[in-house]
Amino acid sequence: MTFDLIPATDVLARTPSTLEDLLKGIGESWARADEGPDTFNPFDVVGHLIDGEETDWIPRAKIILARGANPTFEPYDRFRHRERNVGRSIDSLLAEFAELRAANLELLRSWNLTATDLDLTATHPFLGPVTLRHLLAAWVVHDLGHIAQITRVMAKQYRDAVGPWVPFLPVLTDRELPPA
Amino acid sequence: MTFDLIPATDVLARTPSTLEDLLKGIGESWARADEGPDTFNPFDVVGHLIDGEETDWIPRAKIILARGANPTFEPYDRFRHRERNVGRSIDSLLAEFAELRAANLELLRSWNLTATDLDLTATHPFLGPVTLRHLLAAWVVHDLGHIAQITRVMAKQYRDAVGPWVPFLPVLTDRELPPA
Repeated sequence: MTFDLIPATDVLARTPSTLEDLLKGIGESWARADEGPDTFNPFDVVGHLIDGEETDWIPRAKIILARGANPTFEPYDRFRHRERNVGRSIDSLLAEFAELRAANLELLRSWNLTATDLDLTATHPFLGPVTLRHLLAAWVVHDLGHIAQITRVMAKQYRDAVGPWVPFLPVLTDRELPPA
Repeated sequence: MTFDLIPATDVLARTPSTLEDLLKGIGESWARADEGPDTFNPFDVVGHLIDGEETDWIPRAKIILARGANPTFEPYDRFRHRERNVGRSIDSLLAEFAELRAANLELLRSWNLTATDLDLTATHPFLGPVTLRHLLAAWVVHDLGHIAQITRVMAKQYRDAVGPWVPFLPVLTDRELPPA
């Protein structure tokens, strides 16, 4: 599928309500469940998505659209949320994410990006030259991947509870080891 | 996590609205996108979940709760939905699933299952003896696994669009080959 701004924005707009349906008011045993050491629980994932709104996707789009000489992204801190959100509830993170996302999509739409804008580039600190189109497509995939992660992590809490059903429920054995 | 009926039912109740948030009114290019030959697209997944409501989870729970001699499940047809839903829209499947799920959860709650009930068993045609507790836990995991599948399948449509971002978006390379 080629990247197209309208269907991409449609998917980005669905994420806050999807996360609220999955997680709002959910018990702590689900919200704080993970896949083992150094893996994210659903609470962490929502915090990480907030970090993306504040420090990744739109800030990087702004760097590209500023059309400066040699635009370069700052490295992204995958663990900013850990200190930032100590003592918060998952419901408060969900509400914050929804506000940030709505404002960011309003800004994105206000730019009325053209195909020429989408071809503008910047340098990613690890990936090299990327276009605005790559960045916005990665934003969509990042959302979808983290929704998949939340449901996979929750599913795995019942690995023992399903008894002999494990081979018919492949989500239970996806990512047996976290990626290096 | 041990299986407990109230948090399990809470997760099951969230699935219809989660699916509507992800898919209601979505373009056909997302709804009919898949991971290759013999894999499900989001439309297929919702049809498969409808089949589960009509022929799998609650019908099998009823077989167990009937307390007959040698209770045995019928094999489950993973492709029933393909013929059943030709010509339907994804929105009509989402609405049908929501109705079926609500009725099934009302029935489940009306049973007021005890720990003794949850230990009752039946024979699964491939897995052998299973308890009602295993069955209900598998229902929860099945939902979560299929939500993960929908978002993974959608994400993969942008594998080329993200350009050099692929190594930072591991959902794009999950299940490179469909399970046998």
